[in-house]
Amino acid sequence: MMERIRVTHFGLGPIGAGVIRDLTGRGGFQLVAAMDVDPNKKGRDVAEMVGLPDPLGVQVTSSAEEALEVKSDVAVICTVSSLQAMVPLLEQVIDEGLRVVSTCEELVFPWVALPDLARYIDEKARKRDVQVLGVGVNPGYTMDYLPLVLSAPCRQVDRVEVYRIQDASRRRLPFQKKIGAGLSLEEYVRLRDKGKIKHAGLINSIQMVACGLGWNLDRVEEVIEPIEATHQVSSPQITVPIGHAAGTRQIGRGFVGNRECIYMEMRMSLGEPHPRDTVIIVGEPNIESTIRGGLHGDVATTALVVNALPVISRARPGLVTMTEIPALTCLAEMGA
Amino acid sequence: MMERIRVTHFGLGPIGAGVIRDLTGRGGFQLVAAMDVDPNKKGRDVAEMVGLPDPLGVQVTSSAEEALEVKSDVAVICTVSSLQAMVPLLEQVIDEGLRVVSTCEELVFPWVALPDLARYIDEKARKRDVQVLGVGVNPGYTMDYLPLVLSAPCRQVDRVEVYRIQDASRRRLPFQKKIGAGLSLEEYVRLRDKGKIKHAGLINSIQMVACGLGWNLDRVEEVIEPIEATHQVSSPQITVPIGHAAGTRQIGRGFVGNRECIYMEMRMSLGEPHPRDTVIIVGEPNIESTIRGGLHGDVATTALVVNALPVISRARPGLVTMTEIPALTCLAEMGA
Repeated sequence: MMERIRVTHFGLGPIGAGVIRDLTGRGGFQLVAAMDVDPNKKGRDVAEMVGLPDPLGVQVTSSAEEALEVKSDVAVICTVSSLQAMVPLLEQVIDEGLRVVSTCEELVFPWVALPDLARYIDEKARKRDVQVLGVGVNPGYTMDYLPLVLSAPCRQVDRVEVYRIQDASRRRLPFQKKIGAGLSLEEYVRLRDKGKIKHAGLINSIQMVACGLGWNLDRVEEVIEPIEATHQVSSPQITVPIGHAAGTRQIGRGFVGNRECIYMEMRMSLGEPHPRDTVIIVGEPNIESTIRGGLHGDVATTALVVNALPVISRARPGLVTMTEIPALTCLAEMGA
Repeated sequence: MMERIRVTHFGLGPIGAGVIRDLTGRGGFQLVAAMDVDPNKKGRDVAEMVGLPDPLGVQVTSSAEEALEVKSDVAVICTVSSLQAMVPLLEQVIDEGLRVVSTCEELVFPWVALPDLARYIDEKARKRDVQVLGVGVNPGYTMDYLPLVLSAPCRQVDRVEVYRIQDASRRRLPFQKKIGAGLSLEEYVRLRDKGKIKHAGLINSIQMVACGLGWNLDRVEEVIEPIEATHQVSSPQITVPIGHAAGTRQIGRGFVGNRECIYMEMRMSLGEPHPRDTVIIVGEPNIESTIRGGLHGDVATTALVVNALPVISRARPGLVTMTEIPALTCLAEMGA
């Protein structure tokens, strides 16, 4: 039998909890420590915090130092979206010689948006001979990695379009609120202008695709607009009257010169029709690929994190992106 | 500017010719030698042999030794489907310290079907510190690599189905003949039983998917049947009367115990409806992904070969499969 991979976990929010449920349910992994900043979670068994029936025998600590005292192979970090905010923890973890897999959106492809920070982390990780990977369903898979993988059979690519269309009515309430569902258009605009209604990472995805295709973008653009309910729509938790925001639409564009060569659109609303993840490549050959219904964000992100754990040790040391490492695959026990 | 990658090419059949047209049309590569066994091609400029208007300044040789006298970085081998038949050339090329990218179907994933040969090549390549990759649209991409990449967002996979449905009426005549289009059912069966109507590599794809998911298959099965024309169908070259073979259907199955957990179906016929490449994953979550129209085999295979050339040097030395190396992407100049 393969040696089990020891995991030190940081961050017990919804995604972090999902990662723990996934990895403790599979063979091959051993959770050795878990840390969360919430003082109410301190000292309690991790199982209780993530909704598992049987104790895991690991108590939540609120101190990173304490979590890092236990010998481990890899740190899973599901704490913040901002890379800058994650740096102190990242430094500690790398200093301990642990590999890192994180859902931090800005870590997925920071080379263009935060080049100095990316280089700093890369060098630090190389020196300690560990790998650092940012991954998630988006950014990290549907709107960047998958379009790049789909370009492999092309002898030329002139333009890439990616559509992520989601019916939010079956997602958890915080997600529905994050997309502004139910707000009046005035409230939507007010919150949007405060930066509260925003998917983090669309521009990073555009930059990652451009880099993977060898394109130097001259300019990127991003717009965020409400999707107005033209008839009453609802989820189990929210009812949206006509004329209010049913959700949000976020569009990113990448230009070479004045030519728009990358177009990415996310639509997330209650009752959004035809949910899907679609990649269109205009080139030789043209490619149109669709995942029917679209990938469910939370399940996919936790699975990607867990599936990355056995793979990253085979990547080059340093800050790596999804395209630089061997392919992630689902390495779980088959169901009955 | 990046140093150009020097390429030594073997095999000027339709696929090999396509590779040359693709790589000489892009920046980044330099064709330094080309070999083909056909004595009629010997001494002629490669451009003439592959249908390019301007001479490339490289003459076709019929001797591998002569081709290998020119200093190079990577060998592209588009000669045979049988790995055993390719071994002598592979040995020569590896001995010269060249990396290898080949369309040899059996090289894509030989670890289960030809384990001793796979180990031999792997060790030989490791010793010379070079990489050897088998790749093509199928096997090598649509029915094995892509399903594995699509399993990455899954926390569990119970079953994989892959469908490659192709309308052969727009493909080249040798392809139409290879699938038995126009034959009476008796002729079809006679040729099939002689092994003449067969896509090489479906079982290899099944084994590659199983390996990538960590499954140990107990049994694989393969059936090849005619697709009977229920109305008259035709291509520009062939007309198929009712009751004759419009093409072929090849089905592969992989079992764990008595459970069929991998199902792969290829349908290739004149006028085949709804051409597509579809992957269905039964698991958590379920995934259904479709490339509309399906990937055109010849264009995709040549592009995959050329796109692999800059990537394989970053893989581990040895015999590698697509899932073990960084992701291939289209690295070509953008069109106007």
